[in-house]
Amino acid sequence: MRLAVPLVRKAATSASASGPATTTTSLKVGDALRSGRRRFTEADVAAYAAVSGDRNPVHLDDAFARGAGGFARGRVVHGMLAASLFPALIASRFPGAVYASQSLRFAAPVYVGDEAAAEVRALNIKSAGGRHIVKFATKCFASVHEDDEEALAIDGEAMVFLPTLELGSEAIAE
Amino acid sequence: MRLAVPLVRKAATSASASGPATTTTSLKVGDALRSGRRRFTEADVAAYAAVSGDRNPVHLDDAFARGAGGFARGRVVHGMLAASLFPALIASRFPGAVYASQSLRFAAPVYVGDEAAAEVRALNIKSAGGRHIVKFATKCFASVHEDDEEALAIDGEAMVFLPTLELGSEAIAE
Repeated sequence: MRLAVPLVRKAATSASASGPATTTTSLKVGDALRSGRRRFTEADVAAYAAVSGDRNPVHLDDAFARGAGGFARGRVVHGMLAASLFPALIASRFPGAVYASQSLRFAAPVYVGDEAAAEVRALNIKSAGGRHIVKFATKCFASVHEDDEEALAIDGEAMVFLPTLELGSEAIAE
Repeated sequence: MRLAVPLVRKAATSASASGPATTTTSLKVGDALRSGRRRFTEADVAAYAAVSGDRNPVHLDDAFARGAGGFARGRVVHGMLAASLFPALIASRFPGAVYASQSLRFAAPVYVGDEAAAEVRALNIKSAGGRHIVKFATKCFASVHEDDEEALAIDGEAMVFLPTLELGSEAIAE
């Protein structure tokens, strides 16, 4: 995995009276988090097929994918594997996050060997009893190479319980 | 994987004039397909964490899952891994199926070591140009052991393009 062209706003820096300067920020409505770009390899797809039991030939057989599958460039990554970028991104920033729901519209394929990145943007935040429920817009973008134009591959929304809104020292996208 | 307590209706048997009796059936609105029950092991969850990059401690750390995670029985299976039962089931019966969308509501956890089965039921079928778009109700049921009561773990709907509605010689549930 590599970091994406960032779209990043630096987190605000605040100095604590009792210690060194620390950098923290709290998730707000409108904030976006973006994953690094990840290339989905043939080995990834084979590993996912093994653990999920999903051996659909559109993922495993180039000739089938091109022919009956109608995918111009051959095998495609399992949609649910590409969609796993969303909880992976959210959990990487908020360990202990618990998913309530996710909708997924598969707008364009991610071909095996292509790169994809996830972006999640806070649409709504409700806090009660020390827990937070956040509605995120979730988008996955695919590209052939790092410097190619990105296409929207997956669009949807997620509702996720977060144990905290603190993002620590990480930067967030706007 | 084992086959679930089936809820099965036998496919209709039809005799061909030119050959032996064959058993085929075509998917109709109201028909349900059900997967065998699958036990999600610690190894499955570790393999999925590796391929997805989702290392949320609620899936990997029993003490964290019980404490901060609030999961009474410890580590839980990644929701997207349990949800992979839906495309795996559909693709097993309709190779070449292509997902258009999926909604997922995570109603109850699937704990690591528990069993889960998927059931998909055709709600709507539209056919045009030799392709079929089917809306399925998708439910995943979890249980501790084969003979325990099942709890609804995931509820949702999927829109899937199918290359055929023919189910071949398989039986379907009602």
